[in-house]
Amino acid sequence: MTQPSERDAQPSPEVAVIVGGGPGISASCARLFADSGMRVAIAARNPEKSALQNLERTHRVRRYACDASEPAAVALLFQSVVRDLGAPTLVVHNIDGRVPDIFRKGITEADAMLAFETVRNSAFSAFLIGQQAARLMLENKPNANGAKGTIIFTNASAALKGFPLSGAFAMACQAKSGLAQSMARELMPQGIHVASVPIDAAIGWTQEDGSRMHRLAGMTVDDNMADPDRIAEMYLQLHRQHRSTWAFEVVLRPWLERW
Amino acid sequence: MTQPSERDAQPSPEVAVIVGGGPGISASCARLFADSGMRVAIAARNPEKSALQNLERTHRVRRYACDASEPAAVALLFQSVVRDLGAPTLVVHNIDGRVPDIFRKGITEADAMLAFETVRNSAFSAFLIGQQAARLMLENKPNANGAKGTIIFTNASAALKGFPLSGAFAMACQAKSGLAQSMARELMPQGIHVASVPIDAAIGWTQEDGSRMHRLAGMTVDDNMADPDRIAEMYLQLHRQHRSTWAFEVVLRPWLERW
Amino acid sequence: MTQPSERDAQPSPEVAVIVGGGPGISASCARLFADSGMRVAIAARNPEKSALQNLERTHRVRRYACDASEPAAVALLFQSVVRDLGAPTLVVHNIDGRVPDIFRKGITEADAMLAFETVRNSAFSAFLIGQQAARLMLENKPNANGAKGTIIFTNASAALKGFPLSGAFAMACQAKSGLAQSMARELMPQGIHVASVPIDAAIGWTQEDGSRMHRLAGMTVDDNMADPDRIAEMYLQLHRQHRSTWAFEVVLRPWLERW
Amino acid sequence: MTQPSERDAQPSPEVAVIVGGGPGISASCARLFADSGMRVAIAARNPEKSALQNLERTHRVRRYACDASEPAAVALLFQSVVRDLGAPTLVVHNIDGRVPDIFRKGITEADAMLAFETVRNSAFSAFLIGQQAARLMLENKPNANGAKGTIIFTNASAALKGFPLSGAFAMACQAKSGLAQSMARELMPQGIHVASVPIDAAIGWTQEDGSRMHRLAGMTVDDNMADPDRIAEMYLQLHRQHRSTWAFEVVLRPWLERW
Repeated sequence: MTQPSERDAQPSPEVAVIVGGGPGISASCARLFADSGMRVAIAARNPEKSALQNLERTHRVRRYACDASEPAAVALLFQSVVRDLGAPTLVVHNIDGRVPDIFRKGITEADAMLAFETVRNSAFSAFLIGQQAARLMLENKPNANGAKGTIIFTNASAALKGFPLSGAFAMACQAKSGLAQSMARELMPQGIHVASVPIDAAIGWTQEDGSRMHRLAGMTVDDNMADPDRIAEMYLQLHRQHRSTWAFEVVLRPWLERW
Repeated sequence: MTQPSERDAQPSPEVAVIVGGGPGISASCARLFADSGMRVAIAARNPEKSALQNLERTHRVRRYACDASEPAAVALLFQSVVRDLGAPTLVVHNIDGRVPDIFRKGITEADAMLAFETVRNSAFSAFLIGQQAARLMLENKPNANGAKGTIIFTNASAALKGFPLSGAFAMACQAKSGLAQSMARELMPQGIHVASVPIDAAIGWTQEDGSRMHRLAGMTVDDNMADPDRIAEMYLQLHRQHRSTWAFEVVLRPWLERW
Repeated sequence: MTQPSERDAQPSPEVAVIVGGGPGISASCARLFADSGMRVAIAARNPEKSALQNLERTHRVRRYACDASEPAAVALLFQSVVRDLGAPTLVVHNIDGRVPDIFRKGITEADAMLAFETVRNSAFSAFLIGQQAARLMLENKPNANGAKGTIIFTNASAALKGFPLSGAFAMACQAKSGLAQSMARELMPQGIHVASVPIDAAIGWTQEDGSRMHRLAGMTVDDNMADPDRIAEMYLQLHRQHRSTWAFEVVLRPWLERW
Repeated sequence: MTQPSERDAQPSPEVAVIVGGGPGISASCARLFADSGMRVAIAARNPEKSALQNLERTHRVRRYACDASEPAAVALLFQSVVRDLGAPTLVVHNIDGRVPDIFRKGITEADAMLAFETVRNSAFSAFLIGQQAARLMLENKPNANGAKGTIIFTNASAALKGFPLSGAFAMACQAKSGLAQSMARELMPQGIHVASVPIDAAIGWTQEDGSRMHRLAGMTVDDNMADPDRIAEMYLQLHRQHRSTWAFEVVLRPWLERW
């Protein structure tokens, strides 16, 4: 039996919060972070999805229901995580935010309220998550790398360039990017690593039956999709960077992507 | 007395719509556009301000009450302008959108709803104005420069860089910038010139009593403020560019500004 | 007959120096600047080209032989211009610098010495021209716009993005762009307007026989080429900007260009 | 004694080439790459420096004399490495290229030939090294990550922004950056990972006597310098990325750096 003194001597595991419950990046992050010894919370609108239940079973991932664009819901999420698992040192925001009916719509055709909903889902939820994460992390003690915590915002190529037929998504992605820049300049000198990771690709992943899937309907599944397990690896590397050499933005794209 | 045939032979004047009723860029644009022979409409939440009444008196500027972040209000604005003055060929969006209580607030202190209000005021109103302007302009015939119209979005240096203590403003400005990029790539090949003009400076102007004023409270009034009359000049030059050589983004800054 | 006192009262004409003797932007600038009342000098490796001789005849443009990548030749050029026409207030660098054999060459095939020659022709000549122009302009008195002079660097889309099969040109264009940025931050607070104008297009122009020509061999002549007369207009507008609102970079591209 | 069959079963070690012999990033890379099982070559103008001799002794690093701005010398370097160690899969270009007398010189004061020397030392050597590396790597078989090799260009913040009083360095850094962009777009679809890593900081390192040193003379040694061991870590992570998720540019800066 472990002695109390021995237990105290062990560092308590880190706590990671992943916001967005998709089967791609969020699931890959959950598995990798758990395998690296972290306690992992995942927040999603619908945490009852079987993929998330699987993560709970296989990786002890804790599931939380949360509409991340609601201030009260986000505050409650972080309170619950602190109570259940402890104060987080790694928070990842993976919400894309597009509603299906806004896809490939020209500026003259797009439904204005759906456009605004896209911004709310993506950028405003990033603000709320980032705000709560920052409040908690500023209370953390610096770790061996001099960091109080890491906040990562997944983004898309629309963060770098506003494409035609996607004005609403360009608004949302660049809003999120602007927020990340401001937070980085504000929080990095206070010991919190803020990073923005635009993925310039469709995201592919392997289904339970072994077949290869991707995030965007209607696209050909080929060799040119980003592997979410590799994205999760990058996130862990960012989290482990020493504060002497922090990267703010890392764009990940497949070898065949044109840019 | 003018003969009907003579009147028909004259080209009808262009129609310009200026959204945002401030005493700086909007007023300068209104004066310059009117002096250049255009019929000018100005839309503001409160069109009863004495500065706008003066513009009506001195430059026949037509005033419209409009909350530009309300879809129905924006649709009505453009219907009214078309009915009163004709179809616009130049639309300028000058709304900054910051509510006073969001100024210089760190991410942990900022009121989330005010942050979202800032995005709504600035970027969402730009979406609504841009959408209505595009719908009308696509129906215009190309002019001698091959253009069906010009849509200009005034922006700030936060569009280029997210500064600390201004996460909400960075979201709003970069959202507006992303929208402008998407609209430019979509609409320029259809003959509409879309331009984004970040002003990397405080805006100064001369009051009626001759004293020098500026837009941001608490700043020293000095030689390093942008002159809104010169900004309006740039807008007119952009509007008159031939479609063979359109500029999308022009950053204007005073000579002493650091960047 | 004009009295001496009257002559003194007249402002002496401005002096413009155009470096690079091509039939596109340089010729358009020469005509426009001369038509605007400036004394114009044009410097080219071979000033005996018939196009330049025509400019001399029609617009009193003064021609100078100059290899702009040779320090001594550039120093001599400016001495000669000052002696012949007066101190310049507008200097435009139009040299592209590509040698034919470097076009569309992959990194593994490109001749290294030709690559370096490209950098020398383009970026190093920009350094030499910018240095001499700055030395002279710092001695000028500010004009009505508060400016001692304007230095404009024409550039290409490779300044914004390094394309495949053109590593040497990307080096040259981005070197020139970096120089322009540094000079702008250094010289604008001293009253000299430095501007960079990447042209994201092929340049078209009208030949003496009325046919339409373009700069790059092997491209289809169509509606999507930049008109050098319009580029020259932009340059004159940049030169006339008030120092309260200087633009550093203006990218010009045709309406149909993809970017 | 090892049996031949056993030796064949073992994968042969990777070969890394580091160009530039400084005590900061180059030495850290050499140690880390060697500790990771690679055979390491280091090329420097003066390979007899004691720091490099130490690396040979402690990490079996092979030293080569090479003026990397000479085409023939660079060709010979790679021939020698292939002969001595094998074909490289990782090549790092660390040359800064500034000659001391060009530091903090305004455009009007800078010696033009030293400015050009800076571009030659930095960007042209990057072209030569990149060219030879690409030629060799295209012949490699893809590894488990689908990559034939990795070429990394260390750069500085001047790659991102041309600062005043450093026009020559801005030219050199942005030329190198443009080259890297072009090479990435050209070579990544052929299986070679090209990356650019601007270090937005002074580089610090620990001397043999334990004292903390930095690269730039005259700067205060403080907590805000990049640790070259951490930079080397990033390089190894870049080298090990799967081709499904390659990063092209990673800017590294200390937590207290303003940007």
